[in-house]
Amino acid sequence: MANGEIPIERIYESDNFFSILDQDPALEGHSLVISKKHFETALDLPNSLAPELLDAIKSTSLKLIERFNAEGINIISNVKEAAEQTVNHLHVHIIPRKKLDKGRLKFVDKDSGKSIMLRDK
Amino acid sequence: MANGEIPIERIYESDNFFSILDQDPALEGHSLVISKKHFETALDLPNSLAPELLDAIKSTSLKLIERFNAEGINIISNVKEAAEQTVNHLHVHIIPRKKLDKGRLKFVDKDSGKSIMLRDK
Repeated sequence: MANGEIPIERIYESDNFFSILDQDPALEGHSLVISKKHFETALDLPNSLAPELLDAIKSTSLKLIERFNAEGINIISNVKEAAEQTVNHLHVHIIPRKKLDKGRLKFVDKDSGKSIMLRDK
Repeated sequence: MANGEIPIERIYESDNFFSILDQDPALEGHSLVISKKHFETALDLPNSLAPELLDAIKSTSLKLIERFNAEGINIISNVKEAAEQTVNHLHVHIIPRKKLDKGRLKFVDKDSGKSIMLRDK
């Protein structure tokens, strides 16, 4: 505060991961689980850290569900620039959803603007 | 084959998970990692199974990257109907991507059709 920086609230923290609200949310409550150690992508995380990551995802999701009165969660991690990863450090998007929100998760054709439904199975 | 069913190739299989190509892919190579035991969502998976799930995600991703000459992967799991989960059984979307593919992962406003960028951080 003294140096003028805005403190970013950590909504969850464990030994190897922490969660913060995304500063440019796609939808209200959009948050990120971030690894403290450097791994470039989710595919680079050692399997031994997977239980702690899953725990961070669960804990963050439950906190967001309560805080934003949400009814669902999209869990998304993009691997490499071709998949729209823009910062090369492992992070997982946790996006709280409501039945009546307006968002629909889709792939959009960048040329035609047509959207391709991500049909959930 | 004898009964007229089309066999679905398992592109990866372990004790608790298997992967198949999505029969209605959003983009070429779109696949699903599915748990053999019933868990409703990713948030219901015991942490003890997380290493095997991460291993299934990694192995499936590497196979798809090789097979479809991909350069990236979107990993997505939807939790509950409000987040567009339509089958109540844990599965993870593994979507191979190329730099020159036309898809852009976005939230689309269901009323206005406007898309909201999922800015990767």
